[in-house]
Amino acid sequence: MTSEPTQRPIGVAVLGYGNVGSEVVRILRNQAADLEARVGAPLELRGVALRRISSDRGIPEELQTTDAESLVARDDVDVVVELIGGIEVPRKLILSALNSGKSVVTANKALLAEHTGELAEAAEAKRVDLNFEASVAGAIPVIRPLTQSMAGDRITKVAGIVNGTTNYILSAMDETGADYSETLAEAGRLGYAEADPTADVEGYDAAAKAAILASIAFHTRVTAADVYRQGISEITADDLASARALDCTIKLLSICERITTPDGSERISARVYPALVPSTHPLATVNGAFNAVVVEAENAGRLMFYGQGAGGAPTASAVMGDLVMAARNKVHGGRGPRESKYAKLKVAPMGDIPTRYYVNMQVADRAGVLSAVAAEFAQHGVSISTVRQEGEGEGARLMVVTHTAADSALSDTVDALSKLEFVTAVTSVLRLEGTEQ
Amino acid sequence: MTSEPTQRPIGVAVLGYGNVGSEVVRILRNQAADLEARVGAPLELRGVALRRISSDRGIPEELQTTDAESLVARDDVDVVVELIGGIEVPRKLILSALNSGKSVVTANKALLAEHTGELAEAAEAKRVDLNFEASVAGAIPVIRPLTQSMAGDRITKVAGIVNGTTNYILSAMDETGADYSETLAEAGRLGYAEADPTADVEGYDAAAKAAILASIAFHTRVTAADVYRQGISEITADDLASARALDCTIKLLSICERITTPDGSERISARVYPALVPSTHPLATVNGAFNAVVVEAENAGRLMFYGQGAGGAPTASAVMGDLVMAARNKVHGGRGPRESKYAKLKVAPMGDIPTRYYVNMQVADRAGVLSAVAAEFAQHGVSISTVRQEGEGEGARLMVVTHTAADSALSDTVDALSKLEFVTAVTSVLRLEGTEQ
Repeated sequence: MTSEPTQRPIGVAVLGYGNVGSEVVRILRNQAADLEARVGAPLELRGVALRRISSDRGIPEELQTTDAESLVARDDVDVVVELIGGIEVPRKLILSALNSGKSVVTANKALLAEHTGELAEAAEAKRVDLNFEASVAGAIPVIRPLTQSMAGDRITKVAGIVNGTTNYILSAMDETGADYSETLAEAGRLGYAEADPTADVEGYDAAAKAAILASIAFHTRVTAADVYRQGISEITADDLASARALDCTIKLLSICERITTPDGSERISARVYPALVPSTHPLATVNGAFNAVVVEAENAGRLMFYGQGAGGAPTASAVMGDLVMAARNKVHGGRGPRESKYAKLKVAPMGDIPTRYYVNMQVADRAGVLSAVAAEFAQHGVSISTVRQEGEGEGARLMVVTHTAADSALSDTVDALSKLEFVTAVTSVLRLEGTEQ
Repeated sequence: MTSEPTQRPIGVAVLGYGNVGSEVVRILRNQAADLEARVGAPLELRGVALRRISSDRGIPEELQTTDAESLVARDDVDVVVELIGGIEVPRKLILSALNSGKSVVTANKALLAEHTGELAEAAEAKRVDLNFEASVAGAIPVIRPLTQSMAGDRITKVAGIVNGTTNYILSAMDETGADYSETLAEAGRLGYAEADPTADVEGYDAAAKAAILASIAFHTRVTAADVYRQGISEITADDLASARALDCTIKLLSICERITTPDGSERISARVYPALVPSTHPLATVNGAFNAVVVEAENAGRLMFYGQGAGGAPTASAVMGDLVMAARNKVHGGRGPRESKYAKLKVAPMGDIPTRYYVNMQVADRAGVLSAVAAEFAQHGVSISTVRQEGEGEGARLMVVTHTAADSALSDTVDALSKLEFVTAVTSVLRLEGTEQ
């Protein structure tokens, strides 16, 4: 029931000409013959929307425009590739593209994490594609495996390192022993951190990706506001040293999980925080600017996807895959999977999520401290896994690793501990992931 | 240009009721509501073709049939899931399904490695889907990432551990120091090896998968006969000990690669053999019955996919993904990617492939042996990377690791060495993969 193949060229508009946009344009030109064979028709670049037209961009001036809106509106544009970033401007451009029956490819996680619903509905109304493989984990295929390959399975958990900047910083801190601000500055010098690194280091980028992953894994609409978020800016060199002492490392994780509440109802959790990860866990060895996503499903078991999560060419690879698929559908008929939100699961508040804590305290060096601290945990119903005492006098410390408990019970315990007279300071509180129990 | 959604149920026929078939039937029943929401119409099991009807199979007798042909021919069957195994019988059933306009899902790598062309043409003629995600690497999404997510990239290499039986045996030999036949027997007892393990241990299964991977990675029709193949039955405990001494392990690899010949023309290589892999390589830590596939592409860089490559439930997960996608297309119109063979690249003979060798020789314990051996390598134009001498008298040994050379030059060198008077025996020849140079 699909239309017959046609050889009419597929017109492509590229919005944005940064790292990724320029790579997309390069590939469109250098691989034209391959792309034509794969699509079934030539891909023709109709124009590139950018801030300022210039003769030294490596693309003919007549293909450059500062008027993205008019480019999107052209009749000979079939697929719009949005690589501008930001939210309001691309949102309007994408809606206008979809509303006029053009398919859209975007890598814009911030936009998707807020407005997937509205965009997906526009795509649905016109029966066109809205593809966004490049929005999570760069070159690593994650969206398509989750929405297609695993469409017949029941995904229980997705846990990933999906932000290259923070992973670079944490890996470097672990390697060098340097502190956070020093390492962040170095990351900036090397091009791994932006001038304003807030979106990365405070976990907003990872949270947007968690919202996208949770939406597609659990067939439920999840937005960035639903995601519990904590960044890495308070991680210290001491935290990494403590992690090593526990044979762990620290990773900023985006976690999406199916939770069954005590009363038996099904909830989902989407959360981002730096966590201790045992060095034997597959995510522990994902270092530098690399990304990895672990997926657990009822029948498939545990899968891992690993690769380059950022950078111009790797992200362009994912964008080009989306573009070829959208163009193929324009030629042969048919569509990729649309938004699936039938499950409509509620997002559980962070306090309800079962987690494990690692707590590092400076304590008075006197008898009975350990037993008082242990009593405080017990009173909140939290069971302790291991305790280590270290140092003497001013430097006396207690390090506690708990078993699993409700996150609220754990954080209440930490609050209570910090008020105890002989606890001088709670110097570090980190969750522990990737362990049993 | 697709048909309007319909709520007509999608009829499913399952051919074969072994490990995978029974899991597929279980999932179809237990997850019916989820599957209906994902497909857009209920999936209804029309029948299961099996060898012998019986009341104790957990499926109503009226759904069981020994007549697969009539089941496939039923008007109310829209998608046929082939899980019989073998070649001739499933080939005819699949052709008859495709010819009557039904989509097909199969996990049958042996069949695909021989007859993809014929099957793909039948699917094309009727514009239906032929999905085979489960044919390579069980639950791990590989086919869809290669054909869709990376459709806009240029894949240069695919190297994978895609046979669980041999990986279990090699991992166990590495761990225990036991020899091959002992470990194979143990694998049989534990259910990791079949009664007749030939297809696995001689690399036929891995070669079929290499043919499938090479076909889709390089847009060229590659059959099992094009794949150079060597199994693991001659790997000894000594080989594994030597590998450890070189900080390597031994893995049976399926390798698909783009090669540029000295005269500048493009060829592909598809090959299967046990190889030394450095312990720092991502494939070195893939142990037991797990599978992993590393993909290298011009823009994406290096990606790795990891998970369970065999077993009823994991394989059923991949089958169900294919089934949901085929059923969605029946409901909404459209098709998945069809066979892509436009590139028509030639397969290079093994002798032309650049490889590295590890050669272990028993030699006479006398002066000048090393220089004579080195001269033999030099004469064949092969450059040596490292040499180690060990033992004395009867036990004197030379272990040589070469730089990269044409495989024919390397094997000619080994032939020549074995004829040297002071070389008592060439005890081990293995290729080295996953290194530079």
